[in-house]
Amino acid sequence: MTAVRYAPLPDPFRMTRGGELRHAQVAYECWGTLNRERSNAILLFTGLSPSAHAASSPENPDDGWWEKMIGPGRAIDTDRFFVMCVNSLGSCFGSTGPASVNPATGKPYRLDFPELAVEDIARAGFEAARSLGVEKLDTVMGCSLGGMVVVAFAAIIPDGARRLVSISGSAASSPFAIALRSVQREAVMSDPAWSRGNYADNERGPQAGMRIARKLGTITYRSADEWRDRFARGGLTPVGKQSVSRALQRVPEGFGPRFAVETYLESQAEKFVRVFDPNCYLYLSRAMDCFDIAEYGDPGRALARAGLSSALVIGVESDFLFAIEEQAGIAERLSAAGVATTFARLPSIEGHDAFLVDIARFDAAIRGFLAG
Amino acid sequence: MTAVRYAPLPDPFRMTRGGELRHAQVAYECWGTLNRERSNAILLFTGLSPSAHAASSPENPDDGWWEKMIGPGRAIDTDRFFVMCVNSLGSCFGSTGPASVNPATGKPYRLDFPELAVEDIARAGFEAARSLGVEKLDTVMGCSLGGMVVVAFAAIIPDGARRLVSISGSAASSPFAIALRSVQREAVMSDPAWSRGNYADNERGPQAGMRIARKLGTITYRSADEWRDRFARGGLTPVGKQSVSRALQRVPEGFGPRFAVETYLESQAEKFVRVFDPNCYLYLSRAMDCFDIAEYGDPGRALARAGLSSALVIGVESDFLFAIEEQAGIAERLSAAGVATTFARLPSIEGHDAFLVDIARFDAAIRGFLAG
Repeated sequence: MTAVRYAPLPDPFRMTRGGELRHAQVAYECWGTLNRERSNAILLFTGLSPSAHAASSPENPDDGWWEKMIGPGRAIDTDRFFVMCVNSLGSCFGSTGPASVNPATGKPYRLDFPELAVEDIARAGFEAARSLGVEKLDTVMGCSLGGMVVVAFAAIIPDGARRLVSISGSAASSPFAIALRSVQREAVMSDPAWSRGNYADNERGPQAGMRIARKLGTITYRSADEWRDRFARGGLTPVGKQSVSRALQRVPEGFGPRFAVETYLESQAEKFVRVFDPNCYLYLSRAMDCFDIAEYGDPGRALARAGLSSALVIGVESDFLFAIEEQAGIAERLSAAGVATTFARLPSIEGHDAFLVDIARFDAAIRGFLAG
Repeated sequence: MTAVRYAPLPDPFRMTRGGELRHAQVAYECWGTLNRERSNAILLFTGLSPSAHAASSPENPDDGWWEKMIGPGRAIDTDRFFVMCVNSLGSCFGSTGPASVNPATGKPYRLDFPELAVEDIARAGFEAARSLGVEKLDTVMGCSLGGMVVVAFAAIIPDGARRLVSISGSAASSPFAIALRSVQREAVMSDPAWSRGNYADNERGPQAGMRIARKLGTITYRSADEWRDRFARGGLTPVGKQSVSRALQRVPEGFGPRFAVETYLESQAEKFVRVFDPNCYLYLSRAMDCFDIAEYGDPGRALARAGLSSALVIGVESDFLFAIEEQAGIAERLSAAGVATTFARLPSIEGHDAFLVDIARFDAAIRGFLAG
């Protein structure tokens, strides 16, 4: 059973950095009820890797990636709001992306997919809302990559939303984040199984490279302090063979996983590699590098287009991938654009991923803002 | 011309975690003059990647990796001290390591090299000093991996040194650092050209994997703040084809280097891959993971063996690979062992590599200590 629905995009869908898509679509899921005025919609953008399945529903009872935040009486209250979560354009969970079939050739786009921009994800997501007759959102919200997407949204969608929530996002990637993503992509592209994007499927694709990319991602999603608490170093931790990927089982004794933290990375990588398309990963990763709100000139004007009345920007002090100064920068720019902006600086130790883990703090911040 | 000399190790040289080496040696370089009492020797241990060439000399006028710190009148004053820098046991710049010929087979050890421990590096380095008749060092000093080696030295070499300087080191690797190194090694071992260690030479070895490992290392050696200052993001920076490795020249347009920081990583990787043996890299990297002074029990006793009278521990606030709490931990343990210990907490923004860059601050701290 699936809760996924599909919104067709305007045809052709012109991409920000050139090229266009034909017969493209965006996958989304919904919770709650759209009111008669169609004025109670919250549009949620995800981080790089999740699907639109942010919460469970009768059609798909599995927990979603933000299960504890969305539902009746929860911070994002589906008794009051109609909540939509979109799978990003360029991703591989139902939205059109490099793994989708190119209608012009009948074959997957792969590297023929046009360059993806964060702005394309914003516009495609908004089109999903429009397909339901929503012309102005109550709130546009996003986490991580999604926290960038909503910044793009504010700059390019005229009168698109009344309120904005940007969580652990950025208005322009830092050289540090660009460097990390560059290494992640190189791991994928250096894997001979990548074959310049022409692998047959995930199973026969650049699994070794994707595994490295995901492990590195996992390292940057948390903080060293949290890891110290979680994986007390102790002695050498015995690791069962079955929990180690085939790649690492071929590794000589002494060089396979010995520490609990290595086993944790293995399990994270294993999950990701099974479901995520490598070319989609490359496109989404590069899109983040290239986003820069400075392209829109004066901040006081850049973020005024969406006609926002208020905004909440959340940053986490221990986030070293999207440093808190970056969220402070988003808040400053929104203020400069005349938006009544609250900046929540959270002391969570869970780093970039805190919004998935430190539910109590995020619940309080978001609940308070949406109630206002 | 070379300034490198070689000290034979006791034969056999028994390794801390089992196994032994036959006819092993340590490569070293020297500056200054050993006094008649042989009491003015400073023994310097390096980070993971440098050779023993810490400074220039008539025999090798090329700048060394710590050129500005060592010489007449410099912080490590060769008018006063006899300075030796050793290439770590297990490395590939003249000391015995996995790339050396195993006298038992006439072929390189490769993965038949016994497991390497940080303690082995400490003992082998001290043997180099003993080969010159030095039975007690004036000062044992080390940076990064070397900063760990000197901690091991304090625990295992009876009356080995009067003073100790540990720079950006650790008494036990953090789960965060273990995780990062684990990903670096996986990049090397996932490269099919690694061939379980049986590559013909660096040129035909796991260059793609080594490149990823080094780029990731480079990212962790500095701080996000320093990178922001250095690589103002700006727009897209055009990158010349010739400055990009062959691996990345095969990458499709849009996915090769676009930003200045990516070009910087390329140049760092290119240099490293040419000179560093991949198996040696794996052994040294794993040795760091497994070092834990807690194996020696009570800190008050653990670090007392070397008979130190004083110590200087230096940490850098922006170092996120070897966090400053780790250096504070070394200082605490040395104090508990009855050593008069100074802890210098430096506000440099250059992260783990600050000792190579922020010479003014390190010069002041080390000069002051050595003068005392």
